[in-house]
Amino acid sequence: MHNRAETPAPDPMRPASLADRYANIRATSEAICSPLTTEDHVIQSMADVSPPKWHLAHVSWFFEAFVLQPFAPGYRVFHPHYDFLFNSYYETHGTPYPRPKRGLLSRPTVADVHRYRAHVDDAMHDLLATLPQEHAEEIAARISLGLHHEEQHQELLLTDIKHILGTNPLRPAYRDDLPDPPAQPARAPAWLAYEGGVHEIGAAGDHFTYDNERPRHRVYLEDFLLADRPVTNGEFLAFIADGGYQRPELWLSDGWSTVQGAGWQAPLYWERIDGAWHHLTLAGLRPVDENAPVCHVSFYEADAYARWAGARLPTEAEWEVAAAEQPVAGNFREAGWLQPVAGLTRGRGPRQLFGDVWEWTGSAYRPYPGFRTLSGTLGEYNGKFMSGQMVLRGGSCATPDGHARATYRNFFYPGQRWQFMGFRLAGETQ
Amino acid sequence: MHNRAETPAPDPMRPASLADRYANIRATSEAICSPLTTEDHVIQSMADVSPPKWHLAHVSWFFEAFVLQPFAPGYRVFHPHYDFLFNSYYETHGTPYPRPKRGLLSRPTVADVHRYRAHVDDAMHDLLATLPQEHAEEIAARISLGLHHEEQHQELLLTDIKHILGTNPLRPAYRDDLPDPPAQPARAPAWLAYEGGVHEIGAAGDHFTYDNERPRHRVYLEDFLLADRPVTNGEFLAFIADGGYQRPELWLSDGWSTVQGAGWQAPLYWERIDGAWHHLTLAGLRPVDENAPVCHVSFYEADAYARWAGARLPTEAEWEVAAAEQPVAGNFREAGWLQPVAGLTRGRGPRQLFGDVWEWTGSAYRPYPGFRTLSGTLGEYNGKFMSGQMVLRGGSCATPDGHARATYRNFFYPGQRWQFMGFRLAGETQ
Amino acid sequence: MHNRAETPAPDPMRPASLADRYANIRATSEAICSPLTTEDHVIQSMADVSPPKWHLAHVSWFFEAFVLQPFAPGYRVFHPHYDFLFNSYYETHGTPYPRPKRGLLSRPTVADVHRYRAHVDDAMHDLLATLPQEHAEEIAARISLGLHHEEQHQELLLTDIKHILGTNPLRPAYRDDLPDPPAQPARAPAWLAYEGGVHEIGAAGDHFTYDNERPRHRVYLEDFLLADRPVTNGEFLAFIADGGYQRPELWLSDGWSTVQGAGWQAPLYWERIDGAWHHLTLAGLRPVDENAPVCHVSFYEADAYARWAGARLPTEAEWEVAAAEQPVAGNFREAGWLQPVAGLTRGRGPRQLFGDVWEWTGSAYRPYPGFRTLSGTLGEYNGKFMSGQMVLRGGSCATPDGHARATYRNFFYPGQRWQFMGFRLAGETQ
Amino acid sequence: MHNRAETPAPDPMRPASLADRYANIRATSEAICSPLTTEDHVIQSMADVSPPKWHLAHVSWFFEAFVLQPFAPGYRVFHPHYDFLFNSYYETHGTPYPRPKRGLLSRPTVADVHRYRAHVDDAMHDLLATLPQEHAEEIAARISLGLHHEEQHQELLLTDIKHILGTNPLRPAYRDDLPDPPAQPARAPAWLAYEGGVHEIGAAGDHFTYDNERPRHRVYLEDFLLADRPVTNGEFLAFIADGGYQRPELWLSDGWSTVQGAGWQAPLYWERIDGAWHHLTLAGLRPVDENAPVCHVSFYEADAYARWAGARLPTEAEWEVAAAEQPVAGNFREAGWLQPVAGLTRGRGPRQLFGDVWEWTGSAYRPYPGFRTLSGTLGEYNGKFMSGQMVLRGGSCATPDGHARATYRNFFYPGQRWQFMGFRLAGETQ
Repeated sequence: MHNRAETPAPDPMRPASLADRYANIRATSEAICSPLTTEDHVIQSMADVSPPKWHLAHVSWFFEAFVLQPFAPGYRVFHPHYDFLFNSYYETHGTPYPRPKRGLLSRPTVADVHRYRAHVDDAMHDLLATLPQEHAEEIAARISLGLHHEEQHQELLLTDIKHILGTNPLRPAYRDDLPDPPAQPARAPAWLAYEGGVHEIGAAGDHFTYDNERPRHRVYLEDFLLADRPVTNGEFLAFIADGGYQRPELWLSDGWSTVQGAGWQAPLYWERIDGAWHHLTLAGLRPVDENAPVCHVSFYEADAYARWAGARLPTEAEWEVAAAEQPVAGNFREAGWLQPVAGLTRGRGPRQLFGDVWEWTGSAYRPYPGFRTLSGTLGEYNGKFMSGQMVLRGGSCATPDGHARATYRNFFYPGQRWQFMGFRLAGETQ
Repeated sequence: MHNRAETPAPDPMRPASLADRYANIRATSEAICSPLTTEDHVIQSMADVSPPKWHLAHVSWFFEAFVLQPFAPGYRVFHPHYDFLFNSYYETHGTPYPRPKRGLLSRPTVADVHRYRAHVDDAMHDLLATLPQEHAEEIAARISLGLHHEEQHQELLLTDIKHILGTNPLRPAYRDDLPDPPAQPARAPAWLAYEGGVHEIGAAGDHFTYDNERPRHRVYLEDFLLADRPVTNGEFLAFIADGGYQRPELWLSDGWSTVQGAGWQAPLYWERIDGAWHHLTLAGLRPVDENAPVCHVSFYEADAYARWAGARLPTEAEWEVAAAEQPVAGNFREAGWLQPVAGLTRGRGPRQLFGDVWEWTGSAYRPYPGFRTLSGTLGEYNGKFMSGQMVLRGGSCATPDGHARATYRNFFYPGQRWQFMGFRLAGETQ
Repeated sequence: MHNRAETPAPDPMRPASLADRYANIRATSEAICSPLTTEDHVIQSMADVSPPKWHLAHVSWFFEAFVLQPFAPGYRVFHPHYDFLFNSYYETHGTPYPRPKRGLLSRPTVADVHRYRAHVDDAMHDLLATLPQEHAEEIAARISLGLHHEEQHQELLLTDIKHILGTNPLRPAYRDDLPDPPAQPARAPAWLAYEGGVHEIGAAGDHFTYDNERPRHRVYLEDFLLADRPVTNGEFLAFIADGGYQRPELWLSDGWSTVQGAGWQAPLYWERIDGAWHHLTLAGLRPVDENAPVCHVSFYEADAYARWAGARLPTEAEWEVAAAEQPVAGNFREAGWLQPVAGLTRGRGPRQLFGDVWEWTGSAYRPYPGFRTLSGTLGEYNGKFMSGQMVLRGGSCATPDGHARATYRNFFYPGQRWQFMGFRLAGETQ
Repeated sequence: MHNRAETPAPDPMRPASLADRYANIRATSEAICSPLTTEDHVIQSMADVSPPKWHLAHVSWFFEAFVLQPFAPGYRVFHPHYDFLFNSYYETHGTPYPRPKRGLLSRPTVADVHRYRAHVDDAMHDLLATLPQEHAEEIAARISLGLHHEEQHQELLLTDIKHILGTNPLRPAYRDDLPDPPAQPARAPAWLAYEGGVHEIGAAGDHFTYDNERPRHRVYLEDFLLADRPVTNGEFLAFIADGGYQRPELWLSDGWSTVQGAGWQAPLYWERIDGAWHHLTLAGLRPVDENAPVCHVSFYEADAYARWAGARLPTEAEWEVAAAEQPVAGNFREAGWLQPVAGLTRGRGPRQLFGDVWEWTGSAYRPYPGFRTLSGTLGEYNGKFMSGQMVLRGGSCATPDGHARATYRNFFYPGQRWQFMGFRLAGETQ
């Protein structure tokens, strides 16, 4: 069983360690953007997507607004308008620049943004070197939050870049040096049985988590079955072939409206070329691997597939109970595939719970019993999104290794599918 | 404690009793529309609203499509096009006429619809008199469902009529013979403490319920507090006066967008006249009674109020645990007020759980563990709406007496507020 | 040649004649609505359409607002809110009730509107009986305008009723007592040659015209050809068969967008039933008569047809030069067909210039040189619509006999087609 | 009097001259973009605007599609997808990439576009050097059209760049080296009287014009007055101060809807800073010069101003009659101000007819009598836009010197105002 206490996480209260993590994570964000052209940094291909240079600036603004301005004596903001331009959604901090217009800004340029990052990094370096004792704990907590925040945006950078390039009729690849994942033989999924009763889920203890993972609390579960792997492309192809996208009885009402309105016929990024299904990856157009987890499907599609298969999606509690026993290991970003890959066929127990694809659960994103937001403006971090969205679990091939946890709650609207999203089936014990 | 087994509900399998209920309920629908002009029957004041004559026809179509056509030998449909016009949303039954266009139909006329009702009623009368033994159980179950369905539409008739008249600048009253409810003294709410642990919620047994109330199952609850009455108009006025509608930190993100986009400043139907708040009732414009439950607020408003008050909304399980101990009695439609009324000040324990206003809970509308839909087309009845909506409990002043139950799950989108919707607060024990 | 001076028009300054015209025209409006159900009076099937009861009230409001209130001593308005509800677009008179919401009003009822009409008629009767000498001329001029205004709405009543019934899947007929027009043999169109040079168009003299027909002024025309009859359904069918709706090179850019966006494949109200084209008429669905003028086409369709045919639409000046020589006679409303009918094959010269269909011209609706609006609020009558619209000429099968003139300028947006609109071709000499 | 025959225009049939013009004009387009950052080249700030790199590519595509592919033996297209990406609106050439999505393309990059330009230029250089005799005339005509086309896009580049930078909250300047125009004293406008009668307008002769300027034809004009200069900022400020934007009686109906819907309170790019009106110029924010022509107003605003001033806009024929007598000289792009400047106070006769601002006329953009489009796909060049737009005359401070003519017809929708658009008043004699 995975024991959180054993995680060799750096002590966030130790400035040296924090400074290292700061430097590493900040450098990684820039490395992610290094294969991009200047032009790629500017595009907002849909309202959900932000231009890469906006991400690079926004994560810096987070440190400026929540760490440097309150705690770094004599800190001078880089530019008086950036507070307006790069505030994402903190309404209590000031009116943010409208999200759907982020792609209308040619200035600040990419070079300006890099200068902004350097300016913030210099000040952060100084602050970390001479941490005012009085607020050391609060500062360290905010920096830690800021770094996890930047890691989230690293994942968003990859998914947004994929969408920006995927929208382009020229179908450019993000990187042409990515190796093809090794093929694996097909393997039928197996049901794993879990015992019901009172379980505990959610986070406890001192390690970093988001507010929405807390408090740890009891839930009652019936006995349940969980598939030992996510649904694959091959399985999803059978759903398509069986008219899945044309049969209203398989869909939630809102899902059916979405399918009809958007004309969906397959997961996002799928294209049929000369009769064969391909999909866009960060390495360019590739044939669909039938044994890899299906990806870029909405909650509606996951739910419809489950109904078609005579199963259902797991609740987030069921998922967490299964995942709590597993090591947090899998096809994360550092594995280098940047796409979901076929699971191994040998071995037992659940696999691919972590990495590959975020897994849609059947749980709406709502607060845990006793949930408390952070105080002040940072209280807007997670809590205000607790309506209309569904919980996803486990992390993806674009998630930084070390970022995900068994208790980690990701959340998106049921019609969104540009993240690396898939699902696994659950069911009742006969 | 309310014991469902003691409910003197008529045995739905007994044809005579079923025929009586059929006759009563069908007559009631027409009685509800009797104060309307012909013109009132035609209007669709927004996409959520249906014209009253559409309701009158649709509930008849339900019996025609699901009882008479499959089970009444030689039944002849009243009109070949009605199946298309009055199918509400059963996609597997055929493509329904588009909902937002229901207000574009002058024909069939109100008189035509009454003839349609009579045609269906005659056939139903004959069928009930000579129930084919072979399918008696299935027929009785479908008729019972059809009657509960018609009761739901009776409530919708009242809320839709209110909206149709409320949209009209002439502010006509639905009825001018409605008495004013008696005034009650103000009374501060009290917190009632409930013990946590494993509880059971949901319906079991043979009595009629919708599929979404089943199966009865265990849930784990922490200790919780529940207010002994809903939030009142007077309390909500304090929220307004404190800038509640102008402070983003009180709102869910989707809620804040809605408030901004729609320009909400008060509950629906509220108007300030010469400095005093009035609201439209089915009896016309009336001064707001500070001691009556606040009504016509969205989930977003309920949630924002709760945050402002340092509390939260109860989950549906908490609500049901509290309600299961109470008699199903209150200000339902038959009380004759057709508006929420101030609660009594004497007595102890929770009040107004049933009737007055549907109470928003903090629970998203999702299936219970082990949920199964009805088979065939009727499987679309409830299950397909299980995304994006929130659960409301308890029934309202427009709900037919006998229709609601402690296990009854109503559901609406978080931005809707034209139903008789209010809320009560919950909180953590100390 | 048609000499306007000889028109035996009643002298509008003679009260007795005016009172007769008033009584006749007012009665005719009600007669037009008499075949309707109460429900038909309420519907607004699209934003361009007004509910018939709105028309009946609005034309009465015109007399109340512009004649009775300013000139009838002691006149008491029927209802204080009607000024708001039935003001169509006179912004300087007060903010009008939003046009697209006219179909949301069940009240005032049809009976209320009839009472309103009677109230106005009584007061008008009294005013006409005791015309205050001082303002007699102004009053008579306004009444005359009000009556022409009501005649315009009589035509709109017929076109709106057609749309209201035509939107209904039950395809009800407005009247089932309308005879079928007699069939006529096909006849190829002939070109009539007109000599260019300086011509005069527009109205002069004392007879009633709208402000937009004045002043009479000179225009220079090149020699031109004009078809001796409008384009027929049979000719338009050849355009459809030749892929007319699928070939972008035939269309104006805005027209092509409209065709693509709206999915047009044929004129409005056309339906192919068992392979044969039918169209909705006020008498119900009828087979398309190949020899009758094509109707319910937009300017875009008329223009595309003309390009396909190697011709063009006439300018309004060309049309008027041709029409000024013809008697104002044709298939107007009083002919009783209420649809365009095939023209006679014998005879010479232009035919069907008046009646049958309003003919799209190639002229944008702009002011004549020296145009002056009426003073005060009535100045909004015509002038403010002089952008974005095209001129149509000649009157239709729904226009009251005596209402149209050679100088009459009707105008609609190029994408509108619910009026009885057709066109005739023009071309260059040689 | 300006005599077109004397214009020392290079003979477009002489290859050497054509090659020079080609080289100059192509180089100018790149010079216009040289002050831009790479990021500026990518933005589409509204649907009407195209990204600068799109302009640079599209004008090259024009030569590729209409000159090189048909006439350059062995020409190899630069990229197979560019034909799709950079076709602006030639539907008969293939389905164009959707205009409102031009800002979603990061690729081809700016460098790619420059390579594309060089590729086309090389091939054009070769073609011009060895012009195939057989098609020399057609080729020269198409190249000439392509160069005028590129000049039009040079003007659009400046107006689109202004909008792209003007949309940015940082308000960057296009160039910070632009001098301030010299101040001029105020001078009241004078009316110039023109005699009516039969006039000729439109182009004749062999010199280059667009198809829409032809044929030269007669028109009849009444005597008219024309202001000797455009309306100034100072005059327009008086309109604003007099409540011009709040008074519906001054506006066309469509104009009033636009003002209400868009919330216009002043011309585009105007901002009140500390009580003083400033406007964005290509040199950055500048105080409004009261003596310079008002600019960035829509037809609706021009028309409302004229009504407020008791005047009207001139027709395009009136404007052309006045302009035909004047030299084609004024504040064009080469003057270097890149903004409208105050006119001189000395001298007589009309001034600023050419340059400074395109002047809205009261004429809808429709074909001249006898208009013929170019044959083939190039027939889409002008003719298909002849609905819904108004004619503007005279050229602006962003128009290349030598591009405009007295007969030149520019056209925009009445609500557009991002071009350098102003107006002058006209009126009736006496």
